[in-house]
Amino acid sequence: MRIGITLGDPGGIGPEIVLKALRVLRKDYLLIGSKVVLKYFAEKLDLPIPKAELVDVGGTDFTIGEDSSNNGEIAYRSLIKGIEVAKEGIVNAIVTAPLSKKGMAMAGHIYPGQTEILAEMTGSKNYGMMMVSKKLKILFVTTHIPLKDVSGVITTELLRQKIDLCMRSMKKLFKIDSPSIGVLGLNPHAGEGGYIGREEIEVIKPVIEALRRSGNNIDGPFPSDTYFSKKSADCVIAMYHDQGMIPFKIFAFDEGVNLTVGLPFIRTSPDHGTAFDIVGRGIAKPDSIISAIRLAEELCIL
Amino acid sequence: MRIGITLGDPGGIGPEIVLKALRVLRKDYLLIGSKVVLKYFAEKLDLPIPKAELVDVGGTDFTIGEDSSNNGEIAYRSLIKGIEVAKEGIVNAIVTAPLSKKGMAMAGHIYPGQTEILAEMTGSKNYGMMMVSKKLKILFVTTHIPLKDVSGVITTELLRQKIDLCMRSMKKLFKIDSPSIGVLGLNPHAGEGGYIGREEIEVIKPVIEALRRSGNNIDGPFPSDTYFSKKSADCVIAMYHDQGMIPFKIFAFDEGVNLTVGLPFIRTSPDHGTAFDIVGRGIAKPDSIISAIRLAEELCIL
Repeated sequence: MRIGITLGDPGGIGPEIVLKALRVLRKDYLLIGSKVVLKYFAEKLDLPIPKAELVDVGGTDFTIGEDSSNNGEIAYRSLIKGIEVAKEGIVNAIVTAPLSKKGMAMAGHIYPGQTEILAEMTGSKNYGMMMVSKKLKILFVTTHIPLKDVSGVITTELLRQKIDLCMRSMKKLFKIDSPSIGVLGLNPHAGEGGYIGREEIEVIKPVIEALRRSGNNIDGPFPSDTYFSKKSADCVIAMYHDQGMIPFKIFAFDEGVNLTVGLPFIRTSPDHGTAFDIVGRGIAKPDSIISAIRLAEELCIL
Repeated sequence: MRIGITLGDPGGIGPEIVLKALRVLRKDYLLIGSKVVLKYFAEKLDLPIPKAELVDVGGTDFTIGEDSSNNGEIAYRSLIKGIEVAKEGIVNAIVTAPLSKKGMAMAGHIYPGQTEILAEMTGSKNYGMMMVSKKLKILFVTTHIPLKDVSGVITTELLRQKIDLCMRSMKKLFKIDSPSIGVLGLNPHAGEGGYIGREEIEVIKPVIEALRRSGNNIDGPFPSDTYFSKKSADCVIAMYHDQGMIPFKIFAFDEGVNLTVGLPFIRTSPDHGTAFDIVGRGIAKPDSIISAIRLAEELCIL
């Protein structure tokens, strides 16, 4: 079992947190990124160069703490190479350090995020974002779209697909045979019987009831404000980004992991961005990428 | 200084939590509700009849644990009487136990909630919901409306009004001279510079910047997922119900208080509903209504 780790945007905290993580975790990882960048940060921050093998994607010019097309190109090439080695089976999972969408766009690679590139290159249709911590697992029906578009995007078909993906992932990856699933409502008080929005009655409830009739351990839609202090389930289904991310980040701030489910291999990433504002100062915390590497390892072994 | 307390829906946990609260808090409160209902619950749950004066609004028939027009009528009359005694200055503040909108509607009184009745009867135009706990105060730009309508409702004018109301309430009620205000964004990652929605750029940011130029201690828009574990302010401005209520209920579950600001008198209420499912079993917790009574008292003294 081997894990690949991409270094992310060379102007962000990716290289630093990978170097710090590999001081703690000393296995036979395969690093993917620019050799020059890795060496630069190791020297600047007085961190040991890891013994792990590095697939050098090249790139010598980069800009610290801000977006540039050079940064975007290096980040993009690292990700593409990471996906290739995973597809070839050279690694069983990849952990991706953060990159900047804007930097990638400046280099001509326009994508909503790394996940969409992973999906495209692996031909994955039904994939999803699951946030994972010890206390909480949350799968998102929608992710990085404007709040006003959420209601229109959530169809019976999409919701069914995402819940199905969730159940399969809980069984396949986490080895939970009959996972309990808690589904949140979309509206305040989960619509209060139709008084505050009808998506619960028209879309969410029928999907839950059909799945329950087929013998699944699923319940909801629950009001999302009281759910997290009252209830729990093996995995929670959140309708939109902040509905799930607000409680997740409160409960699991430094150790949260972003797991992409529905790909042909395991992919995890830390729960934060490039953090351009603190790059090169040695203060970036590796907690989340350490959790991401550990989760990838656990899921490969399970 | 005197506080009025309405008993809420006689089929809900209102009478029980008031009786329990008044075992602990023994001041000269003015209770407003049905004498028969109060006596019924005191006997059924073996709780002492409080020495506090009661304004009896009548009503002898009521239904435990479910909606009925009789319940709705008693609850409505209690609230109306409570507003009257507050307007007349007989009490300085009112604390309202929960009632059911559905029950009120069955009795012919159709309102989105108690707050709207309070606003209408006092001619208040710019009023708002502020959730208050020791750790966190949150004022809501929108409250009980479908999620899909939120973006359309938030105009520059509305946002300015609500922030203004927030600042005046912090000064007048909480005696904080230069309150710090943290404003949340609407979209994931607060729109990520326009990549995920434009309300931050077009509405929220301009309002914040104008207020900051006038010397106010205000900042944002912040991504709402990381805000609550990273930042703090004297009061947070939430764009929609669950954005504020999810973190509020996690941090302050049993002791949260709902404070209506912008009325001519102080009004607080507990942070929960009628809880029909547990009525009459003696297990309803009075924590939140005790906090509501205490907050009303504190704000009257401040």
